[in-house]
Amino acid sequence: MSQISEDAIKCLDKGFVRLVDSMGGDDAIVQAARVSYGKGTNKVSQDRGLIRYLMRHRHTTPLEMVEFKFHCKMPIFVARQWVRHRTANINEYSLRYSEARDEFYYPDPEHIQFQSVLNKQGRRGEVPAELKQKVQDYFKEISEKSFAMYSELNEAGVSRELARAVLPVNLYTEWYWKNDLHNLLHFIGLRSDSHAQYEIRVFSDAMAESVKVVAPFAWEAYQDYVVKGMRFSRVEQSMLEKQLPSRVVDDILEDIAYQTTATLHHNKPREDADLFPLYQKQGGTDSETDFRLKWDSGEIEIGNVREIREFKSKLGSLNN
Amino acid sequence: MSQISEDAIKCLDKGFVRLVDSMGGDDAIVQAARVSYGKGTNKVSQDRGLIRYLMRHRHTTPLEMVEFKFHCKMPIFVARQWVRHRTANINEYSLRYSEARDEFYYPDPEHIQFQSVLNKQGRRGEVPAELKQKVQDYFKEISEKSFAMYSELNEAGVSRELARAVLPVNLYTEWYWKNDLHNLLHFIGLRSDSHAQYEIRVFSDAMAESVKVVAPFAWEAYQDYVVKGMRFSRVEQSMLEKQLPSRVVDDILEDIAYQTTATLHHNKPREDADLFPLYQKQGGTDSETDFRLKWDSGEIEIGNVREIREFKSKLGSLNN
Amino acid sequence: MSQISEDAIKCLDKGFVRLVDSMGGDDAIVQAARVSYGKGTNKVSQDRGLIRYLMRHRHTTPLEMVEFKFHCKMPIFVARQWVRHRTANINEYSLRYSEARDEFYYPDPEHIQFQSVLNKQGRRGEVPAELKQKVQDYFKEISEKSFAMYSELNEAGVSRELARAVLPVNLYTEWYWKNDLHNLLHFIGLRSDSHAQYEIRVFSDAMAESVKVVAPFAWEAYQDYVVKGMRFSRVEQSMLEKQLPSRVVDDILEDIAYQTTATLHHNKPREDADLFPLYQKQGGTDSETDFRLKWDSGEIEIGNVREIREFKSKLGSLNN
Amino acid sequence: MSQISEDAIKCLDKGFVRLVDSMGGDDAIVQAARVSYGKGTNKVSQDRGLIRYLMRHRHTTPLEMVEFKFHCKMPIFVARQWVRHRTANINEYSLRYSEARDEFYYPDPEHIQFQSVLNKQGRRGEVPAELKQKVQDYFKEISEKSFAMYSELNEAGVSRELARAVLPVNLYTEWYWKNDLHNLLHFIGLRSDSHAQYEIRVFSDAMAESVKVVAPFAWEAYQDYVVKGMRFSRVEQSMLEKQLPSRVVDDILEDIAYQTTATLHHNKPREDADLFPLYQKQGGTDSETDFRLKWDSGEIEIGNVREIREFKSKLGSLNN
Repeated sequence: MSQISEDAIKCLDKGFVRLVDSMGGDDAIVQAARVSYGKGTNKVSQDRGLIRYLMRHRHTTPLEMVEFKFHCKMPIFVARQWVRHRTANINEYSLRYSEARDEFYYPDPEHIQFQSVLNKQGRRGEVPAELKQKVQDYFKEISEKSFAMYSELNEAGVSRELARAVLPVNLYTEWYWKNDLHNLLHFIGLRSDSHAQYEIRVFSDAMAESVKVVAPFAWEAYQDYVVKGMRFSRVEQSMLEKQLPSRVVDDILEDIAYQTTATLHHNKPREDADLFPLYQKQGGTDSETDFRLKWDSGEIEIGNVREIREFKSKLGSLNN
Repeated sequence: MSQISEDAIKCLDKGFVRLVDSMGGDDAIVQAARVSYGKGTNKVSQDRGLIRYLMRHRHTTPLEMVEFKFHCKMPIFVARQWVRHRTANINEYSLRYSEARDEFYYPDPEHIQFQSVLNKQGRRGEVPAELKQKVQDYFKEISEKSFAMYSELNEAGVSRELARAVLPVNLYTEWYWKNDLHNLLHFIGLRSDSHAQYEIRVFSDAMAESVKVVAPFAWEAYQDYVVKGMRFSRVEQSMLEKQLPSRVVDDILEDIAYQTTATLHHNKPREDADLFPLYQKQGGTDSETDFRLKWDSGEIEIGNVREIREFKSKLGSLNN
Repeated sequence: MSQISEDAIKCLDKGFVRLVDSMGGDDAIVQAARVSYGKGTNKVSQDRGLIRYLMRHRHTTPLEMVEFKFHCKMPIFVARQWVRHRTANINEYSLRYSEARDEFYYPDPEHIQFQSVLNKQGRRGEVPAELKQKVQDYFKEISEKSFAMYSELNEAGVSRELARAVLPVNLYTEWYWKNDLHNLLHFIGLRSDSHAQYEIRVFSDAMAESVKVVAPFAWEAYQDYVVKGMRFSRVEQSMLEKQLPSRVVDDILEDIAYQTTATLHHNKPREDADLFPLYQKQGGTDSETDFRLKWDSGEIEIGNVREIREFKSKLGSLNN
Repeated sequence: MSQISEDAIKCLDKGFVRLVDSMGGDDAIVQAARVSYGKGTNKVSQDRGLIRYLMRHRHTTPLEMVEFKFHCKMPIFVARQWVRHRTANINEYSLRYSEARDEFYYPDPEHIQFQSVLNKQGRRGEVPAELKQKVQDYFKEISEKSFAMYSELNEAGVSRELARAVLPVNLYTEWYWKNDLHNLLHFIGLRSDSHAQYEIRVFSDAMAESVKVVAPFAWEAYQDYVVKGMRFSRVEQSMLEKQLPSRVVDDILEDIAYQTTATLHHNKPREDADLFPLYQKQGGTDSETDFRLKWDSGEIEIGNVREIREFKSKLGSLNN
């Protein structure tokens, strides 16, 4: 079974996550989004804005254009939760074809906790040292005993696929795991959550490190809109804050501005002469001179100055 | 091509949605959830509570246990949006195998609108009657002309798969479309949204009627937690309300109560004698007599009276 | 954990497969195929022919219109192979939420075999009685020991999600498993194969019993064209036989006849007067009188008498 | 809409396929297979053998470790067939967000054919020049007329999502399309087949060119075992040949040799002293001296010399 290479992130006592390969990044998201939603411009700040817009509006298909492949080693009980994410491509070490290796997960004392009473699946509270020691002893004892049995049966020529059935689910296994960014973020959203089991959370957190490097804007937007912004528990939190954070207000304005500008600018190149009639038809009230001035100055608010102003003041009164 | 049967819901001018078959309903969700999350009890009120709990916590796999199969007839441009929902099983009328029928979508005057300036994909405003008439005339003219060409080529023996390429995307097609409840709700969430194109919204709304009948608790919970509760626009709205609705408070309490009760009651049948030590170990402070009284009276709060009381008072001070 | 109900099929020593629900059958396949490939007629014999045609030509989407839901109980190492079939919907008994039950798989003596030398994943040969006894003793010993440890930790209040990590993969788990016919047949094709591990094969075989009842024509066609007809090993076998079985010849002819008849009969209802010109345009050489006679007599060969005759004679010379 | 870049393959009159990015190749397949099926050795010739073994035995998951992303431009009626391959990630040019461009597919004269009588979905025979001209005239006329209508409605401000419904399905659209090698080969197997519509076949053939470059061994094995080896029509052909091609015999021998060698060599590193007892236990009849000689000479037949000899002679008599 594979040992930990230098570029791997160590997880638990003997496991790891290693980014083997990836395809695309923030740029690939933007490239795909622009074929769907229009071209926009190419400045990096606008890439970030477009990715935030996609995340806020749940336009997740462009995120699927980025692909990650990891080599991972983890206990079987972790693999059993992990494999439920069905969009991934997986190749796992097979105990039908290959012999098991003597590698088992033994928990650190600090992660040995009581069953939570409030949360059926959680842990809670401080466990006495003697009980912690007993847990560790039991893990060691059962692992060693089962492996000795397995080895003896294996040496005697018993079929591997049967002999392996005596091995406990703290045995380490390993696999290649390949998935796209959209589904990887969904995985991380669920498995890096505080309700997830500690032993899978460390692997999820390790993969998150790769996402931060490969697609930093997408990672940031995912945190802001999905993890922090959209969960129900955050709605509760928002009640405590009593005020919409200024970041959110800015994002909403940026969003409206982006859409309007894209409408005016980026579809079928229009003749300059067409712009003012269109602006009027869509309810613009500035004179043609004023309109031209704003247009030429490159202000992004052209076309819906009034709407943005009204929206801003509505939000302002709300927050005061 | 199929005509509209009595149990179909008419959509647009010539289309329809008909529920052909379904498998399971709220009961199948509960059945599947209980194998995963513990058994709970069997009263209908608790089924509703369990389904709401699942929806609130995004435990969506039990929803996948309910299956729907629809027979639908819609314009090609609607089918093109629809088909992007990849989890569905589809059998569509094939213009390679069968001849096209002379059935095209002609929009009602009320749904002929201007392009929205704020929303790149939307409609807006009142269109003059003459322009509406022109739209309708053009739809009719191009449909009839293309169908005449198609028919002539078809009669002359030209291969159908090529001749059909002159037909416009307002031609009606039809298919069988089968999907599970989780993915159907996701479809409806996106396609019955006010940002979806009107012409697909009517089909999404029609399928929603079937969901209401087949799985009413799931439908209600989806509306409360996903459609109304989780969208970003609702976070904005919540700012106007400044107060957590009492329904939400009740749901949170119900949720906590459910979990605790399930922990005490429903796992491995325990001896009555085990209950009080466990209650104490988990931090209960009532005397054994008080504990027994509450337990026997069937109160669901047993085990975490204190936590719920504290939580209630925290929320109360927030809402006052 | 669930006990075996009367309508379940017992698998291994303590497991089972039970068909909980299904949607559609051969009729649903035919209904879906006809919307795609043209209507055909409605006699049962033609339903069979149509389903065989679909299977032979790998038109598998109509098979997706049939859905099965099973309740299954099996050892974890079997569940680990099973779960790799990613199209299924699954709800599994969770050892984070619920306590493990004292149920482990102990192999029968007859299924304790040596590792195959030719097949890396197989079993082989007769194992001495003493070794068989040792295998059984080890299974029993490790199961009992690990369960005692688990129970002690659980009673002490250690979190279930951690305590369960000492349990071996011969522990029984259970789930609801829902899948469509196309993917279920693919599962059965792989897992009822002689190369599959015995312990999953019994579950696959049990599900096959349900398929035979719910969709008998599809089952028969799958056996004839996919399991027996298409595997590489069967190509080898065919070399030994040196002759195309008459069943295959009949099927090929039936297939050609079906397509031609469908072309003439079942598309856009044609006037009788149109038939002869079409027949001529498509290369028919019989006189109109001969054509009419054959048509009226209901012979299915109308339209390509010549081709079928030539094909038959070609095959005939091959088989003689 | 995108123009054809230098590295794109032109398809039809205005379309293209361009490989934008890929991840992995034959090496990634081998890497993933070895984690599942054991390590083997690292010579290139053995990579080819391993990939052929995987393909022959339908072990397709390692193929999923290779990913392709294409930028494609094709008529809508081609896109409608293409999109049915549900595993792909897609971002398509949206006529709700962006304006349609005046680009339509006009068929070459040589691809204008009659409807086949034998094959409901096929083309057949030589069409008179006048009819070909009529087809081309009709395509041009309906395309220009519909685009003029669309443009007029668009200029008048009618919502794009509605105006586009007058456009025919020979309009070009474009998308990014990302898929793994296993599913891409499945696509190519169906869409490069002689029964596929010509207009999608050219796109499928163009993507096949990329596969040949990125994963040449996988491409070769797919051709040999799936496209040429496994189709039903090839079973028929094999009847004409009456003899198993020597290539197949070699592959079968190579396969057996590979498995045996892997069994002896590549699992848990064994002591040299263990080899002969194992060889005997598995039925080897050579003396230890003979065994050691063959082992040291690196012959791959060690361990099952007898079986291979017998198999060879069985095949030989069959082929004579």
